[in-house]
Amino acid sequence: MKKTYSYLGPIGTFTELALAQVAEAKGANLRAVTHVQDAIDDVIAGKAFRAIIPVENSVEGGVSATSDALAMNPNIRIYGEYLVPVTFDLVARPGTKLEDVKIIATHPVAYAQTRTWLSKNIKKHTHMPATSTAAAAAELLVSDSADAAIAAPTITKHYKLKVLAKNIGDNKNAQTRFLQIGLANSTPKQTGKDKTSVIVELPTDRPGALLEMLEQFATRGVNLSRIESRPIGDQLGRYRFNIDIQGHVEDAAVAEALKGLHRFSPKVIFLGSYPRADKKKSVHQGNSTNAAFTAADKWVAKL
Amino acid sequence: MKKTYSYLGPIGTFTELALAQVAEAKGANLRAVTHVQDAIDDVIAGKAFRAIIPVENSVEGGVSATSDALAMNPNIRIYGEYLVPVTFDLVARPGTKLEDVKIIATHPVAYAQTRTWLSKNIKKHTHMPATSTAAAAAELLVSDSADAAIAAPTITKHYKLKVLAKNIGDNKNAQTRFLQIGLANSTPKQTGKDKTSVIVELPTDRPGALLEMLEQFATRGVNLSRIESRPIGDQLGRYRFNIDIQGHVEDAAVAEALKGLHRFSPKVIFLGSYPRADKKKSVHQGNSTNAAFTAADKWVAKL
Amino acid sequence: MKKTYSYLGPIGTFTELALAQVAEAKGANLRAVTHVQDAIDDVIAGKAFRAIIPVENSVEGGVSATSDALAMNPNIRIYGEYLVPVTFDLVARPGTKLEDVKIIATHPVAYAQTRTWLSKNIKKHTHMPATSTAAAAAELLVSDSADAAIAAPTITKHYKLKVLAKNIGDNKNAQTRFLQIGLANSTPKQTGKDKTSVIVELPTDRPGALLEMLEQFATRGVNLSRIESRPIGDQLGRYRFNIDIQGHVEDAAVAEALKGLHRFSPKVIFLGSYPRADKKKSVHQGNSTNAAFTAADKWVAKL
Amino acid sequence: MKKTYSYLGPIGTFTELALAQVAEAKGANLRAVTHVQDAIDDVIAGKAFRAIIPVENSVEGGVSATSDALAMNPNIRIYGEYLVPVTFDLVARPGTKLEDVKIIATHPVAYAQTRTWLSKNIKKHTHMPATSTAAAAAELLVSDSADAAIAAPTITKHYKLKVLAKNIGDNKNAQTRFLQIGLANSTPKQTGKDKTSVIVELPTDRPGALLEMLEQFATRGVNLSRIESRPIGDQLGRYRFNIDIQGHVEDAAVAEALKGLHRFSPKVIFLGSYPRADKKKSVHQGNSTNAAFTAADKWVAKL
Repeated sequence: MKKTYSYLGPIGTFTELALAQVAEAKGANLRAVTHVQDAIDDVIAGKAFRAIIPVENSVEGGVSATSDALAMNPNIRIYGEYLVPVTFDLVARPGTKLEDVKIIATHPVAYAQTRTWLSKNIKKHTHMPATSTAAAAAELLVSDSADAAIAAPTITKHYKLKVLAKNIGDNKNAQTRFLQIGLANSTPKQTGKDKTSVIVELPTDRPGALLEMLEQFATRGVNLSRIESRPIGDQLGRYRFNIDIQGHVEDAAVAEALKGLHRFSPKVIFLGSYPRADKKKSVHQGNSTNAAFTAADKWVAKL
Repeated sequence: MKKTYSYLGPIGTFTELALAQVAEAKGANLRAVTHVQDAIDDVIAGKAFRAIIPVENSVEGGVSATSDALAMNPNIRIYGEYLVPVTFDLVARPGTKLEDVKIIATHPVAYAQTRTWLSKNIKKHTHMPATSTAAAAAELLVSDSADAAIAAPTITKHYKLKVLAKNIGDNKNAQTRFLQIGLANSTPKQTGKDKTSVIVELPTDRPGALLEMLEQFATRGVNLSRIESRPIGDQLGRYRFNIDIQGHVEDAAVAEALKGLHRFSPKVIFLGSYPRADKKKSVHQGNSTNAAFTAADKWVAKL
Repeated sequence: MKKTYSYLGPIGTFTELALAQVAEAKGANLRAVTHVQDAIDDVIAGKAFRAIIPVENSVEGGVSATSDALAMNPNIRIYGEYLVPVTFDLVARPGTKLEDVKIIATHPVAYAQTRTWLSKNIKKHTHMPATSTAAAAAELLVSDSADAAIAAPTITKHYKLKVLAKNIGDNKNAQTRFLQIGLANSTPKQTGKDKTSVIVELPTDRPGALLEMLEQFATRGVNLSRIESRPIGDQLGRYRFNIDIQGHVEDAAVAEALKGLHRFSPKVIFLGSYPRADKKKSVHQGNSTNAAFTAADKWVAKL
Repeated sequence: MKKTYSYLGPIGTFTELALAQVAEAKGANLRAVTHVQDAIDDVIAGKAFRAIIPVENSVEGGVSATSDALAMNPNIRIYGEYLVPVTFDLVARPGTKLEDVKIIATHPVAYAQTRTWLSKNIKKHTHMPATSTAAAAAELLVSDSADAAIAAPTITKHYKLKVLAKNIGDNKNAQTRFLQIGLANSTPKQTGKDKTSVIVELPTDRPGALLEMLEQFATRGVNLSRIESRPIGDQLGRYRFNIDIQGHVEDAAVAEALKGLHRFSPKVIFLGSYPRADKKKSVHQGNSTNAAFTAADKWVAKL
């Protein structure tokens, strides 16, 4: 039976490009959902084998819904990450010319990220907000309330639309990072180019707790690639930290750092170890190879 | 001439409750805007003396638009902060009874925060999303597309609506924190119960830079109350940190920590020192009073 | 066959009081030597089972000969520590009266530590230096070059001398700490009131290495009770650190800290874990019990 | 009137070589004393303008008498440091041949540092301890109790002795560091190649205090060149730290670190800023130039 991958839809958005990077998803059932939590619910309920959801955009920042869902759903784990370049095309009904465009439909975020191009090339225009870039594009074919839409390049695979202008985003390096989420029943193998994600709450009884938490990593030579604070939710001023670190839980440096966190923190959630999307080697500072750890273990064992 | 205060509207939302806490705004012109950046633009353009905008919600987390606007608009500064309890009422057209309610309009965030009450008290209902709680409530009076709305208690000051149920939020401690923003031409006086906000970028040439940055505070006994990472925006993996610390820039411990940041960081933005909304005394760890700093200065001067 | 304990002699000095605290040494052969290294050589050569040597005095500081011998003799280990109160008596040939005393023989250190009493009670006197307090006392019985000697109270057990004044030291809390040294073939059992000693060299390639080394302890909640720098000897400016920490190598927190040192340091020497002389409980900061370590190990093992 | 320089004698020892490096001492009265404290007493009493005393040997370690005298005499300060190579010559009465040497007089430390050479070249010999290398050499001319002496090369300037072997020390890089001590009434000018010495006691109320103290330096980019623990003396387990740091008190980084120490420590003693003997440039980590400090000061002043 074919496996199902749920993803934050609709079809024709950037998530589709992430999904295209998931080798195992080739030929699988793809199921578009409208909220991050719905995708995770599919996984938990067994309706989907995995879910593909966005976690961070280089311009907009973290996707709160994803960060919080990872904290709130204990039986899920991250199995992979994918980087999708965020490029925007201006699309329209066949026959439309650029000079005809007056009303442009798109998601507010996409509109915000194409303002420079728009202000140069279509000085006089109106923005019509849409719930997604794909919805804006799809609407062009059923109504003439807008003249054009700003959408992901993948949109033309699904809708017969004409591209009026390609790659009109202000930031040519813009990217969105996606995660593959599944049930917490295994961990991808160590590849030497891995990332490990955790969520950590701080002890409340002392100032400097964040510093102490970071020292749990630094002492073992473990580098952070991202730290994001999110409200615990019970009262203002209490935060948990979603943290990505270099390396795999089978890297001894990472394992010992996680153990340190476990002792230090009133609550720490392991979200998984998985291959890095950028395929860079995990670097641990100092003498922190597994061999160095094994040598140290042997030395103490002999004492 | 009366001063103008711009605020994130529309009328009848929680921002109005923040505005009510701004003593100087009594009797001033109040100007509702629809985006955080619009409120700040009003200040920069001189259309408004000050702007009142949300910065953080105890359930939803930081307001990215505000965090980023503070980083992007160099001539503005924070002049005050305000805590508003986030309580929700279910309101309807006069004559409506609770058992009549089938379709409930509100902003998705408000809907998310009242789910527990709704699932107990109005098991069968449909949610109709709205752009704000106030818009949802206002719409009740012009259309019967919804039966009731979930809105801030202040809504009944503006619309003739009946309260069907009070304080239906899931989290009774939920709060939103608001900021008062103005042009950067002064700093509120030191009160002993202050907060200072900065934005800091990290040097990119070394791992452990976040730890080093936090040590700039710790060494001077300065406590952090909040740290939020936001993308710098040029490429994935580069972050700036919006930081709130206890104390005023006239506290010697804070001033020295800021100087340390200035040397350490490739870019640091001072957002202001202002009275704490919770009116708690600023605490600096160790021997970090202004008197201790003055004594140390005198000692070294004599050497 | 009776075991032999070598000790820094001669008989009648403070080391004898340390030896009296070594339960296993009751009835053993006692062998007085004149240098710390001689005592250690006895152990290495098998001439002695154990050696009792001073390591630190509360007034004079560390005994360099001991600190360096511990670094230079790889096959020895510390098996115990003992605290001896350093009190001084003024002794003389029977028949001598206090008012007759003009010339006082003693070791320069003992003289330095009794100056206050002497300046009050025997204003006019001359100090005759001796190689040890015991030698000064012994000499009284074979020559009249001195009228009195300052020595340890234990001296009268060995020589028929009269005590002219008791406890004449300036500092009533003065103590000397002694070590029991043996071949490195076992480790005393964990008692919960233990000390662990190590010698650590710092990596030379970076400033802040001492700070990093201390963080290896701090991150695991391990407290230092003493740190002493000693020259490595090859060139000025290179030091090794003799370190005493709270706890036993079987305390998981201590074991992990030692492993961290092993990875961090180009050279680390384990000198032993042994019961604390002050019988205080070992305290590890934070959540650093063996149970907490085991729980963390199990947690990571399951991931 | 000629100034007087007291020095740890007798004439013919290594201190004389340090004195020869003190340009201002040329043609001054030189006054040999027998204890470090005597030299300092001369300065305090006005009998000497300055005192030259050893502080550290690359093989033997710190000179406790000097470390403690610096802590105990509040009105003195360090004005310079000097490095003297510790080389040993074997000297004898004129006419003596190497093969005649059976009894060798010298100070035990000198004997310890020439053992390798002696064991190769004069296998059968007896060591006769002396109070100083110079005394051993001088005695050769008045008694034939020894055949040869081990002394500093400078000895032949004062005594008509024949050199039997030159540079017989085991460690060819051995050095002794000396200090020039004077009354605390000025500070040598900043040269960019400076050292600053302080003595610091730690707060007793918390573990990790040593780490916190080191962070006072690290946060300001100030490098330590030496740290030595010495007993405070009141009870076992309480230490003060004699610390040498790179840089001058007029380096803003150093000044701020000293101020930090002043607030942190219950007792901190400034011993002086003076030119480094090795003439290396002071290096402060990070962006810690005076210009960076001034820029930071100006920035905060404007806020």
